[in-house]
Amino acid sequence: MAKQKKGEKSAGGGLREQLRVPAGEVDLTKYDTRATAGFSGTKDDGKLALDALGAEVSDWQERLFAEGRTGGERSILLVLQGMDTSGKGGVIRHGAGLMDPQGLKITSFKAPTPSEKRRGFLWRIRQAVPGHGMIGVFDRSHYEDVLIARVRELVTPNVWTRRYDQINEFEAELTASGVTIVKCYLHISPEEQRARLEARLDDPTKHWKYNPGDVDERQLWPDYMEAYHAAIERCNTPDAPWYVIPSDRKWYRNWAVTTILLETLKELNPQWPTADFDVEKEKKRLAAT
Amino acid sequence: MAKQKKGEKSAGGGLREQLRVPAGEVDLTKYDTRATAGFSGTKDDGKLALDALGAEVSDWQERLFAEGRTGGERSILLVLQGMDTSGKGGVIRHGAGLMDPQGLKITSFKAPTPSEKRRGFLWRIRQAVPGHGMIGVFDRSHYEDVLIARVRELVTPNVWTRRYDQINEFEAELTASGVTIVKCYLHISPEEQRARLEARLDDPTKHWKYNPGDVDERQLWPDYMEAYHAAIERCNTPDAPWYVIPSDRKWYRNWAVTTILLETLKELNPQWPTADFDVEKEKKRLAAT
Repeated sequence: MAKQKKGEKSAGGGLREQLRVPAGEVDLTKYDTRATAGFSGTKDDGKLALDALGAEVSDWQERLFAEGRTGGERSILLVLQGMDTSGKGGVIRHGAGLMDPQGLKITSFKAPTPSEKRRGFLWRIRQAVPGHGMIGVFDRSHYEDVLIARVRELVTPNVWTRRYDQINEFEAELTASGVTIVKCYLHISPEEQRARLEARLDDPTKHWKYNPGDVDERQLWPDYMEAYHAAIERCNTPDAPWYVIPSDRKWYRNWAVTTILLETLKELNPQWPTADFDVEKEKKRLAAT
Repeated sequence: MAKQKKGEKSAGGGLREQLRVPAGEVDLTKYDTRATAGFSGTKDDGKLALDALGAEVSDWQERLFAEGRTGGERSILLVLQGMDTSGKGGVIRHGAGLMDPQGLKITSFKAPTPSEKRRGFLWRIRQAVPGHGMIGVFDRSHYEDVLIARVRELVTPNVWTRRYDQINEFEAELTASGVTIVKCYLHISPEEQRARLEARLDDPTKHWKYNPGDVDERQLWPDYMEAYHAAIERCNTPDAPWYVIPSDRKWYRNWAVTTILLETLKELNPQWPTADFDVEKEKKRLAAT
């Protein structure tokens, strides 16, 4: 057993059990965006706790990578969703950034191009599925096809209503082929979003992150919440569960997603591959050179 | 001017000028694999100096990334070559790992598949060219097509002798389209390689990194050096220069490549993009939501 770190509360089933969305109806208004479930310390404690995860999560990542290089067929796919400014990029920078970039495959999905669209909404997603031993991270994902596509009526209801089942089938297919799917909804309040957008407008080095369209999307907040409720509820399967990450506190959000990733790695429990060659013989061959 | 960091020697033209291979004939036996050009401190100083580069290199990386997100068309391509165990992976882990993985595109080239081969040796390389604002890192590259391909006679001399010019044309094309190419040869001695292979054989957690073929390749060391001499000499262009990185000391190697990357970023000097919207108007729109 790993020793408990400062600030981490003892929690039998781990953080995943605390943040996992239970089966059934979903109502995000019942989730506190400022909660710090599983962590009792301050912001500074949280930052230290995140740093402290670095060595451990890197070690497990390398084991998974090694497994993938020697015939193993497992991988992890972390799906990050959330409203603008919820911190998908921050999680990648501060959480995934703790790991070796060689074992990461980050994909950021923008609006699909015409050439992507005509191949069906899952085509480009399939292109980005992580290879064996890799940790894939999706910054937005196929869920946009039942979120913005629904809210903005980019497709007819006849099209998007079918997509929930299509997503579930797709995710089941991935699971069966060795991908462990972890889906995190980064949960912020509309007030926190306003503050973060204001901060972007106030800081010229952050203007490039701001888009006037962000305010337009913001005005559709209730519609997006409705779309998220449906997406999380209908695609919350045992093999590809959703986690709601309270994300008004950036430090907690980064710590929580990284902890969930670490718990997932530990559950997969990849082992250092054993040599498929005769070690002693190789030592002699090497010594002779 | 940035303040000089502990251990870093003052060097007018920067580290690139010291490590860059001069035009003309190349003889790697004249380069000391244990040198620490541009750095006067100890191993511990070197590790601290590398960590200290983290914030600065990340900041410049983000500027380049921001430029790429707002219409800029520049990128950096770091090509890593070197004999087995020279530390291509180590540079990525410890050097590139200091940066935001969202702005990195790491590609590791293995033996080409039949489907890759029939498209010509540069096809798969072109697929991996970094997007605008990105830092691409090649762990091995198109240079293998004049290294192992030549040494192992995977193609006829008639084929590989043409490739130097083909590579130069390709790299000129990339340069013209906005890619700054930085090519690093990680220079280790055969004795250091033996020690590192021994270490892999002695440590069961490193067996997966060992391949009996490594000893076979090692026995062809002089042939590989000859191939490297030709590759570096013939493809050492002003726009896509080669650097020889003394790499028997891992800490120096990591610091040196990261420093070269930082110098390259600073020379590109990407600036925070200016807003293409009316900031005051957006503040009002946001406040109204």
